[in-house]
Amino acid sequence: MQSAIRFHPPSYDIRVETIPTPRISDPDDAIVKVKYAGLCGSDLHAYRGHEIVDQVHTCGHEFIGEIVELGSAFGKAIDGRAPLYSTLKVGDKVVSPFTTNCGECAFCRAGVTCRCIHSKLFGCPALEGAQAQYVRVPKAGGTLYSLSDPALSQKYSSWANISDSSLLFLGDILPTGLFAALQAIHHPKLQATLSGIPWPLHMDTSPSVRTESPKDITLTFAIVGLGPVGLCAMIALADQASLKGFKLRIVGVDLNEARRQKAERVYATVCQTEGYTDAGISFVTYDGEAAKSAVSEYTEGAGCDAVLEIVGHDSALNLAYDLVRPFGVISSVGVHSERPFPLSGGNLYDKNVSMDFGRCPARAMLPIALDLLVKRQDVFAGVGTDASLVDRIVGMGDAVEMYKLFDKGDIGKVLFQPWE
Amino acid sequence: MQSAIRFHPPSYDIRVETIPTPRISDPDDAIVKVKYAGLCGSDLHAYRGHEIVDQVHTCGHEFIGEIVELGSAFGKAIDGRAPLYSTLKVGDKVVSPFTTNCGECAFCRAGVTCRCIHSKLFGCPALEGAQAQYVRVPKAGGTLYSLSDPALSQKYSSWANISDSSLLFLGDILPTGLFAALQAIHHPKLQATLSGIPWPLHMDTSPSVRTESPKDITLTFAIVGLGPVGLCAMIALADQASLKGFKLRIVGVDLNEARRQKAERVYATVCQTEGYTDAGISFVTYDGEAAKSAVSEYTEGAGCDAVLEIVGHDSALNLAYDLVRPFGVISSVGVHSERPFPLSGGNLYDKNVSMDFGRCPARAMLPIALDLLVKRQDVFAGVGTDASLVDRIVGMGDAVEMYKLFDKGDIGKVLFQPWE
Repeated sequence: MQSAIRFHPPSYDIRVETIPTPRISDPDDAIVKVKYAGLCGSDLHAYRGHEIVDQVHTCGHEFIGEIVELGSAFGKAIDGRAPLYSTLKVGDKVVSPFTTNCGECAFCRAGVTCRCIHSKLFGCPALEGAQAQYVRVPKAGGTLYSLSDPALSQKYSSWANISDSSLLFLGDILPTGLFAALQAIHHPKLQATLSGIPWPLHMDTSPSVRTESPKDITLTFAIVGLGPVGLCAMIALADQASLKGFKLRIVGVDLNEARRQKAERVYATVCQTEGYTDAGISFVTYDGEAAKSAVSEYTEGAGCDAVLEIVGHDSALNLAYDLVRPFGVISSVGVHSERPFPLSGGNLYDKNVSMDFGRCPARAMLPIALDLLVKRQDVFAGVGTDASLVDRIVGMGDAVEMYKLFDKGDIGKVLFQPWE
Repeated sequence: MQSAIRFHPPSYDIRVETIPTPRISDPDDAIVKVKYAGLCGSDLHAYRGHEIVDQVHTCGHEFIGEIVELGSAFGKAIDGRAPLYSTLKVGDKVVSPFTTNCGECAFCRAGVTCRCIHSKLFGCPALEGAQAQYVRVPKAGGTLYSLSDPALSQKYSSWANISDSSLLFLGDILPTGLFAALQAIHHPKLQATLSGIPWPLHMDTSPSVRTESPKDITLTFAIVGLGPVGLCAMIALADQASLKGFKLRIVGVDLNEARRQKAERVYATVCQTEGYTDAGISFVTYDGEAAKSAVSEYTEGAGCDAVLEIVGHDSALNLAYDLVRPFGVISSVGVHSERPFPLSGGNLYDKNVSMDFGRCPARAMLPIALDLLVKRQDVFAGVGTDASLVDRIVGMGDAVEMYKLFDKGDIGKVLFQPWE
């Protein structure tokens, strides 16, 4: 038996219960002993009753831990199978993306692992979650990422000092924020601006011209939603600006003042680093008017080059539309519902808006997210400090209270330590 | 006085009338004597009463002709002004994009000329159209494209033989079809597929790797709407496949059988050219089911890499959504209305769909559209032949009849010759 944080429908009912320890039920399964499990904004969809869930289940889709049992598919090198089936061992440290993926289907091979034909989301009736002492991982050879791979300590000189609590961010938050940022930056509409070559000629110019350092280019972004994913998106944007050499203005938007202040502190830490741009960042309220006037002022009335929409509400999409410039990009990673879309085709036509929607392919993003995580231990490693992304690490006994505080926006990122 | 084809609200009322000849009313104006003016699908929005227009006006936004009068801004080289202000002369042959643009504002300089702050659409109450003997062109130094530029006969060895009726396609149809195709092909989601490198690694790979010829890559496109713009999109896709070396499957979708047959004949001509791929093309009915099953068969159930939506109706957007693969792209150049959007945020999230909306920046596209036009005289130059994009060239006396036939889909591209 084990302890687990369980959701009881229809809403606001979290209980810590003793339930059977999960077992291998398929040859591709692994059982992971959980060291840390995260509490994430999308856990609140079921908690608030916004997402209709008719079954009691263990919550959570972010975790890091240790392999304690492997199915019979492991230990054999078979052509076409995901490499971990031949290399993963009991005792290895692993992190998991928030959805399972086989690593073998056409979608996985193309790197769009969030659309794997075997994909399941942890922490739903369809798959028990990770806020527990043990979690069963289906398609584990494709899903898991081994942190015991010796190549990592060769690649990262600081590997031994990377904190386990920071590595949990690889499961969802950091890849998703990075995805939102990269999706926008690599859109042809922003690539035109970055190249300094007028649209559409930038598309057919030789690579040597296209990759010139765009030193005098300033991109203006808005991030709508300054929870942990929004902060990771901000960190990713700053990193991209430093790598690619463009200037960067970010307007962060959130209704919650504590979140805005946290974001300012995180940015202040991040932008101290040598090589990062010294472009300003400003935070304005989510209710729209203040953000709109700030953006208008920064961009001489044009609007943001791109808006990262990390909320998943109609109001956030409407605000993103109002903030984006004509011929701009909305990169939306917010989880949207089946409500009617708040914008018309005419709205989108009239402004030449591009929109990229959907779930981050977290498993495919994991290696590049890890690069950023190692580089930015200043904000990922700490716990409860001014500029740390983790607010608290608690035992499961605090789960009911933590869900309440997190729901109200009174606390940031919380990690559960199921063995304390 | 002059003859002009005029629309009388509220709907289905076209009259050929004698009205005053336009005059220079601003220093930046030019007066063009029209040689050919096109009848375009978007002329039907007002004609059918779908677009509320409360004023009699001259129709048409596609034209080619000769400069007969220039405003006082011309003939002077002034820093920051569009180059044509210093070079354009009375007697020069010109073609115009369907909207005016100054060539000087930030949007114009960035190549997104459709979002020029001075932009006006020809053939609306706000700006008299081109289905007339003369048309006034505001911001003419930014808007017009000179076909009398000696550089053109140096660039194109066949320049003297390029037909004037084909050059009219530069005004709207060809840039818009090319725009729909390029917007999709250059989207990061398709670039990942084309590079053969899994997402997201393709974004950070060095250009030398990224630009390898993707010989074994097949992209599957759907084109929803096989009018003249859809045909130009098809021609542009085939050209891109030949230039970039990928294989191409196109599923063309239209309710109208005559349009489907025309598209097949045009494709048969286009794909005969040396260097073009020999990938198949198939045409299925617009009502959806047949197109869906064809796409499903071609792609092993996955869906199209991209769908070009060239209709502007909810049903076309719904079909595009159904046809596109997870992590695919919808490139929409159809003119959409203010009706509620037919898809939910949840739909878009669940399939990781990207959508690029809006009007083609025709003036910025004009030079690369001209490259394609010169290359593809086999389909652009003819009139009324099996594989020609122009169905008929008529005098203005046939205007009422032509609008009727075009509205019913009984005729393809019609050009008016206002002096016959």
